[in-house]
Amino acid sequence: MKSLKPIPWKDVELTAGFWEERNRVNREATIPVGYQHCKSTGRFEAFKLNWKPGKPNEPHVFWDSDVAKWLEAAGLSLGTNPDPDLQRRADRVIDWIAGAQQSDGYLNTHFSVVDPKGRWKNLRDEHELYCAGHLMEAAVAYYEGTGKRKLLDVMCRYADYLCKVFGRKRGQKRGYPGHEETELALVKLYRATGVKRYLDLAAFFVNERGRRPHYFAKEARARGENKSYRWGDYDYLQAHLPVREQKTAEGHAVRAGYLYAGMADVAAETGDKELFKACRTLWQNITERRMYITGGIGSTRHGERFTFDYDLPNETAYAETCAAISLVFFAHRMLNAEGDAKYADVMERALYNNVVSGVSADGKHFFYDNFLASMPGSHKFNGQKSPERQEWFGCACCPTNIVRLMASIGGYMYSLRGSTVYVNLYGGSSAQVGLNGRQVVLQQRTGYPWKETVHLTVKPVEKQTFTVALRVPGWCRKAGIKVNGKTVRPPMRKGFALLKREWREGDKIDLSLPMPVERLEAHPSVRHDAGRVALQRGPVVYCLEEADNGKDLNDILLDPRARLSVSLDAELKVPVVKAHGRKRSKEGWNGELYRVQRSRVTPCPVKAVPYFLWANRGVGEMLVWVREG
Amino acid sequence: MKSLKPIPWKDVELTAGFWEERNRVNREATIPVGYQHCKSTGRFEAFKLNWKPGKPNEPHVFWDSDVAKWLEAAGLSLGTNPDPDLQRRADRVIDWIAGAQQSDGYLNTHFSVVDPKGRWKNLRDEHELYCAGHLMEAAVAYYEGTGKRKLLDVMCRYADYLCKVFGRKRGQKRGYPGHEETELALVKLYRATGVKRYLDLAAFFVNERGRRPHYFAKEARARGENKSYRWGDYDYLQAHLPVREQKTAEGHAVRAGYLYAGMADVAAETGDKELFKACRTLWQNITERRMYITGGIGSTRHGERFTFDYDLPNETAYAETCAAISLVFFAHRMLNAEGDAKYADVMERALYNNVVSGVSADGKHFFYDNFLASMPGSHKFNGQKSPERQEWFGCACCPTNIVRLMASIGGYMYSLRGSTVYVNLYGGSSAQVGLNGRQVVLQQRTGYPWKETVHLTVKPVEKQTFTVALRVPGWCRKAGIKVNGKTVRPPMRKGFALLKREWREGDKIDLSLPMPVERLEAHPSVRHDAGRVALQRGPVVYCLEEADNGKDLNDILLDPRARLSVSLDAELKVPVVKAHGRKRSKEGWNGELYRVQRSRVTPCPVKAVPYFLWANRGVGEMLVWVREG
Repeated sequence: MKSLKPIPWKDVELTAGFWEERNRVNREATIPVGYQHCKSTGRFEAFKLNWKPGKPNEPHVFWDSDVAKWLEAAGLSLGTNPDPDLQRRADRVIDWIAGAQQSDGYLNTHFSVVDPKGRWKNLRDEHELYCAGHLMEAAVAYYEGTGKRKLLDVMCRYADYLCKVFGRKRGQKRGYPGHEETELALVKLYRATGVKRYLDLAAFFVNERGRRPHYFAKEARARGENKSYRWGDYDYLQAHLPVREQKTAEGHAVRAGYLYAGMADVAAETGDKELFKACRTLWQNITERRMYITGGIGSTRHGERFTFDYDLPNETAYAETCAAISLVFFAHRMLNAEGDAKYADVMERALYNNVVSGVSADGKHFFYDNFLASMPGSHKFNGQKSPERQEWFGCACCPTNIVRLMASIGGYMYSLRGSTVYVNLYGGSSAQVGLNGRQVVLQQRTGYPWKETVHLTVKPVEKQTFTVALRVPGWCRKAGIKVNGKTVRPPMRKGFALLKREWREGDKIDLSLPMPVERLEAHPSVRHDAGRVALQRGPVVYCLEEADNGKDLNDILLDPRARLSVSLDAELKVPVVKAHGRKRSKEGWNGELYRVQRSRVTPCPVKAVPYFLWANRGVGEMLVWVREG
Repeated sequence: MKSLKPIPWKDVELTAGFWEERNRVNREATIPVGYQHCKSTGRFEAFKLNWKPGKPNEPHVFWDSDVAKWLEAAGLSLGTNPDPDLQRRADRVIDWIAGAQQSDGYLNTHFSVVDPKGRWKNLRDEHELYCAGHLMEAAVAYYEGTGKRKLLDVMCRYADYLCKVFGRKRGQKRGYPGHEETELALVKLYRATGVKRYLDLAAFFVNERGRRPHYFAKEARARGENKSYRWGDYDYLQAHLPVREQKTAEGHAVRAGYLYAGMADVAAETGDKELFKACRTLWQNITERRMYITGGIGSTRHGERFTFDYDLPNETAYAETCAAISLVFFAHRMLNAEGDAKYADVMERALYNNVVSGVSADGKHFFYDNFLASMPGSHKFNGQKSPERQEWFGCACCPTNIVRLMASIGGYMYSLRGSTVYVNLYGGSSAQVGLNGRQVVLQQRTGYPWKETVHLTVKPVEKQTFTVALRVPGWCRKAGIKVNGKTVRPPMRKGFALLKREWREGDKIDLSLPMPVERLEAHPSVRHDAGRVALQRGPVVYCLEEADNGKDLNDILLDPRARLSVSLDAELKVPVVKAHGRKRSKEGWNGELYRVQRSRVTPCPVKAVPYFLWANRGVGEMLVWVREG
């Protein structure tokens, strides 16, 4: 079956609602904030290659990637919202980047000025190819967003150089990125330019990974390194086995997500069924055993990595913002490869929960890791990051990932295959779709994810027969669809309702997605969630906060039969969930820490708010999985 | 009120039962194992001071303490169980130690051969005074156990030297140990020798601690150190405030326990009421807010430290064996200072649970940290130690602490004040008590802690009036006492039943301590234990193991009304607890990780075994706090 093609972000105007707001805040607050941080930390300056030993702001091995991600966001944003100031700034950054390119095409600030002899000596640790990949993504986005080729040309020269350095021919290196990302970036570059060798290099990186004799071991020996690798097995960077033999998601979660997305890209472009099967196996392991209900992945901060099946601790959850974003990338590629809404379900879960949690409502404060339970003060004693969103991080991968994702969110909403337009995500928008050479506009009006209805208007330039495929979210059990006011019962395929007809200008589709609050249970082997439920309404996971419920959230007990009422919160401006609960009374606890006598249990009101909004009202306890009984 | 004096370990013969067995295994297995490890790692050899740079086995800053603790155990053991081979070995070790003493009295292998210029330059980090303290304890034990003075003389010379180096006079250092221990050791040395300046130095160390200007800061500047202290505030080593101003137990738990024990010693010897009040405040904070039900303290491995009130995570519990031992020391001193059984309750809780858990049944395998819940494999991803007892540790503090404690356990069982003999702990034993100058033998026969009865025989040389004070454990609600077969209802004082009469040779006391299995609840603010109970019988905390209950222990639900039956286990040879429980069925879970549909719940048998015996039947899940509902 042919793949779906995403409708590019540039052809999707965000008109109102949740994503329009996130996109706007991103444009108005986060892009400027990112610029300031890249500037003040010397990340832009680094491209001038005038750093000298002893000077401050030594270019770090992954600084280039932060600039690249900011620039990618700028390019994306300029594609939908022209802004001469931003364009001027971005052009200047591109000039600096171009100026840093070496005569052979190589481009990396750290290895140009800090460690010139280190080039390609340590692919395992040094993020060289990772930075290259991010710069390629930036180049493509900037070219597509602005039509300007300068960075694209720079990066094609770099990629051409990479094609000479890496490969299976005599004299070439059989290496591959220690931090994956380059693979998916090369496929993007290939798609933007049509230059097949970029795809070939991506495929080479994917296929070479994990083979024996092990490149990273050889490379370490060549460096004269005699210590064993600090992470033991190469599973930390998904190089413990050739990728086709990997059955479980292992190691550093961001690396893993980027690799899997790159594998799916290569499989889609090359028709490599075996590779795609590996993607499906890894997808299944993640989503069936190693993913938080928020779409978070990578459950421990030690190595920011996957651990083992069903190991999903809440208070010490790592669930890095970048990792959830990498899962969005992987999901998006799988969705388009298979046309199956189940991938969009996970994509949506990650987006509305772990991803949006990573940035504050004002777009200026960020979470790196995203706990599912929080006890103020505990981070001081267990090495966790603060339970307050921060202005920036020394390792700035998460904010710069947020900024580019929010700028491109429109690109995840629609896809096309033949004469079928897929609506993957709901949100106020207007999409331009080229159908059989004729333009169709698809408009959405909706208060989703808070409201249950989505109104679509179909506007073909002239009447035309095609299919509108509406995703019926996995969480929805009673979707209703009307076309021009009349209830229809269209056939379903892989989670999409297929509305095929001759569409005329102004035809209306009304989609109703009833959103009762549901109690979700985790698999019995998730030991951290036993006896607990998570509240979810539509795609949004809810949580309890101390601000609403007082302290000792873990002691709150939700009656399995308690009515869960939904109401608009005056302060938060979103629907909140209220219910009756119970809690132990501390009466009679006079200094004992343990006792036989049973506590009195007293009723207490329970209020849950959307998880992604947590920590916007000061520091306090937070809890996603609430005890039930 | 006058303090109680412990009946010395040498006067208490362990005749049969729990402690006799632990003491025997310690003597037959653990003392030899400790000798071998000290030998094979070069810890003994270090005292020959012939290490040279580049040679293996560089003497580490706290190696001396391991040798000292082993030697202390040897001295204790020789005091009750003469053993010419052990004595020969120990004497030889003492010769080496004596040979390592410098002409000024100083004695430290690391600073004699590895870093001679470093002497007293870094009290904060380098364990110099800590090692001195352990050697003093060894010297006292060896002298008391064998009558041999050689090490005692060596350590008096060292202590005399310390009295010159440290103090408030001009030219003296106003420093104190970074790792406390020296304080309580100096009091021991004072008690053994009567040399008052040792007590004065202990008091100086206690009183100087945490004063401003801060000695550790001054000392760091003198070293030219410009980094800030890695643990931030000095709370890590209880030097953030003068000890009298400390209200909460902070920092590294072993250091804390040793300090508090030393404070209690100094307070007892000097009559310093304010200092004793500080001890009481800290005791209260520990036992009412910061202690595991197993008597474990120090809940995080990050800094092996106390965290904050009610923060007692189970799976990541640190609860170092040494820390529980330090709590035993503190409790024992408080018990003798106040004559209150509540201190013995905590001492007993720590002994039967966290402490004994630290060593395997065969006496040859050890836990450093003592989790209250365990999931096999998780340690690979969260930095925890293995969930299997190990043969030894590079940092060998725990095994050497176990070995000396088990050798001295008889010394915790009885105390004396005036004409009252206190029975603090129950266990088959025979104590020689000097009462008003006349010898009384007190014999215990009991299967405690498994059996509910304790039989005491009182054997005064001639009939004599005195009081036998029997501790009625805090966990016991219906103690019964008979004297010569007749039920008596003696007055109670501070948890002790006072049996005052004219005792004659052969008088019998039968104490009955009914031990129903109890469900204990933790304070509502202990978030990790909400909705859970711990099973306890007598002083012994129970746990569930995978070996008996299968996987997914967290999913097991104990009915609050389920009968808890006790039976002797054929394999473990101890009483185990059985009950009916429930567990979710995995039927119908087909790949989902989260779902709305409720799981079927099926009955399951539940079996609990004594916590300290866990991990003796292979690696598997373990759980102390069981869900209830």
